[in-house]
Amino acid sequence: MLQSQLFTKTRKEVPSEEVSRNAKLLIKAGFVDKLQAGVYTYLPLGLRVLEKIANIIRDEMNRAGGQEILMPSLHPKENWEKTDRWNTMDDLYKIVDSSKKEFALGPTHEEIVVPLAKQFIASYRDLPMYVYQIQNKFRMELRSKSGVLRGREFLMKDFYSFHADEEDLDRHYEVMITAYKNIFKRVGLGDITHLTFASGGSFSKYSHEFQTVTGAGEDTIHICDSCSTAINEEIIAEQKECPECGGKKLKTEKAIEVGNTFKLKNKFSDPFGLAYKDSEGKDHPVIMGCYGIGLGRLMGAIVEVLADKAGIVWPASVAPFAAHVVEVKSAESANVAMAAQEIYGMLSREGFDTLYDDRNVNAGEKFADADLIGIPTRVVVSEKSIRAGGVEMKGRTELAGMIVQKEKLIDLLSKNTNQ
Amino acid sequence: MLQSQLFTKTRKEVPSEEVSRNAKLLIKAGFVDKLQAGVYTYLPLGLRVLEKIANIIRDEMNRAGGQEILMPSLHPKENWEKTDRWNTMDDLYKIVDSSKKEFALGPTHEEIVVPLAKQFIASYRDLPMYVYQIQNKFRMELRSKSGVLRGREFLMKDFYSFHADEEDLDRHYEVMITAYKNIFKRVGLGDITHLTFASGGSFSKYSHEFQTVTGAGEDTIHICDSCSTAINEEIIAEQKECPECGGKKLKTEKAIEVGNTFKLKNKFSDPFGLAYKDSEGKDHPVIMGCYGIGLGRLMGAIVEVLADKAGIVWPASVAPFAAHVVEVKSAESANVAMAAQEIYGMLSREGFDTLYDDRNVNAGEKFADADLIGIPTRVVVSEKSIRAGGVEMKGRTELAGMIVQKEKLIDLLSKNTNQ
Repeated sequence: MLQSQLFTKTRKEVPSEEVSRNAKLLIKAGFVDKLQAGVYTYLPLGLRVLEKIANIIRDEMNRAGGQEILMPSLHPKENWEKTDRWNTMDDLYKIVDSSKKEFALGPTHEEIVVPLAKQFIASYRDLPMYVYQIQNKFRMELRSKSGVLRGREFLMKDFYSFHADEEDLDRHYEVMITAYKNIFKRVGLGDITHLTFASGGSFSKYSHEFQTVTGAGEDTIHICDSCSTAINEEIIAEQKECPECGGKKLKTEKAIEVGNTFKLKNKFSDPFGLAYKDSEGKDHPVIMGCYGIGLGRLMGAIVEVLADKAGIVWPASVAPFAAHVVEVKSAESANVAMAAQEIYGMLSREGFDTLYDDRNVNAGEKFADADLIGIPTRVVVSEKSIRAGGVEMKGRTELAGMIVQKEKLIDLLSKNTNQ
Repeated sequence: MLQSQLFTKTRKEVPSEEVSRNAKLLIKAGFVDKLQAGVYTYLPLGLRVLEKIANIIRDEMNRAGGQEILMPSLHPKENWEKTDRWNTMDDLYKIVDSSKKEFALGPTHEEIVVPLAKQFIASYRDLPMYVYQIQNKFRMELRSKSGVLRGREFLMKDFYSFHADEEDLDRHYEVMITAYKNIFKRVGLGDITHLTFASGGSFSKYSHEFQTVTGAGEDTIHICDSCSTAINEEIIAEQKECPECGGKKLKTEKAIEVGNTFKLKNKFSDPFGLAYKDSEGKDHPVIMGCYGIGLGRLMGAIVEVLADKAGIVWPASVAPFAAHVVEVKSAESANVAMAAQEIYGMLSREGFDTLYDDRNVNAGEKFADADLIGIPTRVVVSEKSIRAGGVEMKGRTELAGMIVQKEKLIDLLSKNTNQ
């Protein structure tokens, strides 16, 4: 893409009430725009990142047997009354239409997916069943100060599993834990994201969270020194040692929750009468699990954790572009633009998504913008690089670039992006 | 995909209050589920169709210069007051949170995209600018009886163009008309979809709609006999002849609006003070156009128009799968399943999305389901087809199939799907 065509521009200023580092950087670099507290527009660069995150998640959810669907946001009041959450969930947005009919704006989808599943589950032969969606959620957050980490409106992947018994739920729960570990590894947060034991509520001993260590986190976790499993602050009083390995040496850190998994068991199947017949015709409640990841929150966490002083640092797997070609013209260099266009054409033909900075601004501004936007590899084409026999290639976090012959560029880029 | 794994099943019954043919067929075949009037869940088959429609639309919008973004659904009341639509738009869903802050649930996005554009447009050099999104819309329909054709919540593509003057808007408007014609042609509705002149409201002489002829349509249009342009009933009193060619012979038909285009001019830029400086530093209002297509509605229109007595008929471009392999076992035929698996494997390897009916149900039920689901090509593997030297290949609307050697299957399928 030609950068001169991109309608967004980097900004010097961000809205003064914006305090979070992730939103400040994402706004400055032109990935998101803030409409109001906790409500953001994804701009072209941001939507590209969101799509890459979505596709990694889809890939892992499909491998785990999930079938993708898309449920609505307008939920009938009756469904929320059935589970007794119409009056008990504080952050539920409610709507009344002009015929006095009431709706909830979905903050989660158990109330919709369970009656849906009921239409397709009758016998043990219909189990297990796995569905997921990537869909907007709404939660009434009166004070949203964490940028894209905690929104009033946000995209979430929610996966629901339906089982004949708890053994089958336990088996699949492990499949999901592995899938989640794969996701966080693939988006570049593997090393600092910890499987964390948290409260299971009234229906399970534990739930699990995936917590990414960052000073900006709203949660406190205690990380086991020997197996790196963590315990959420909320249960540390009753759970003083690592539930995984029994380790007693724990390190306290601030962290942000990037995913969670719950064993719901029959909590939601019971209110809707979701049951199945076994091979002898006997009825049993369907046992459920649910598994969530917030996409915008994950994007915000990546920014929050990996950014440096100069700007965002995207891992190759979720970067909006694989390469950023920067043309540096001087007065006497008509050939630079031609050489840069050639490199841009070559990279595009070879399948590398490339942003080409063809703007008429000075080199300093171009380099600062490239650092702020955070594309993994910068490819500078200048009078100097041409004289030296090629282009100057530099990884986003590398201090200095190196001159590379254009014939070797594709090979090196392929290594960087694991293509 | 193995049909035994697909969690949806075809149904004999649909909700009794469902009157529209499109929703009846989509529910019976397992493409959508009705949560409440005008609110549907897209099931795996339906989401596949929706994604294919979305990608055709994206492709044409990108060619027309559009940059994709994603705007939110929770809109601040202030924005809707600025355009005076907070109190005048009847079908606006309004929400009050517990701090008494008010929001609108976006039925359209002029109120959001204009202030967004204002942040990036200052000079004539920033124009034209083209953005679009594919996003959920909410409209308070008290009676929704048209299936997925008119929903309370529905996915829409909305494209907004920003121009220095009306000449540039006029030029781009023609680009969009061509893009829309391409879209309706590519989804299989080209021949029966008419560019239709409609009321331009208070700010333009005309707007345009794309109307697909069907008895189930809510609109009435008058189609010019010589150039096939149409006139919407709402303006036929003042516009009695074809505005395109002057033709006077018009044919009256029921039709459904599948797309629309408006010249908004300065209607929305003025309330937000969206202006630009020309090369001499003089201020001018930015001139706008907007262009919508409802994705679910388009899907419903395809079903409504192309279905036959046996079920849905998907054009190859939007079909959930390219081929439907149906294995027909008899008591003595252990080899049929093996042969069918081999065909399924071969088609998948060659890149054809294939649904493989491996279920243990009788042939009659499988054929009826295949017709109902409406995948363009059915490939039957049976004792009979194997004896005859291959598989039986049949187009969805063909009366009889023909025996094809498996080596020739790929060639023939490629022709059917234009791969």
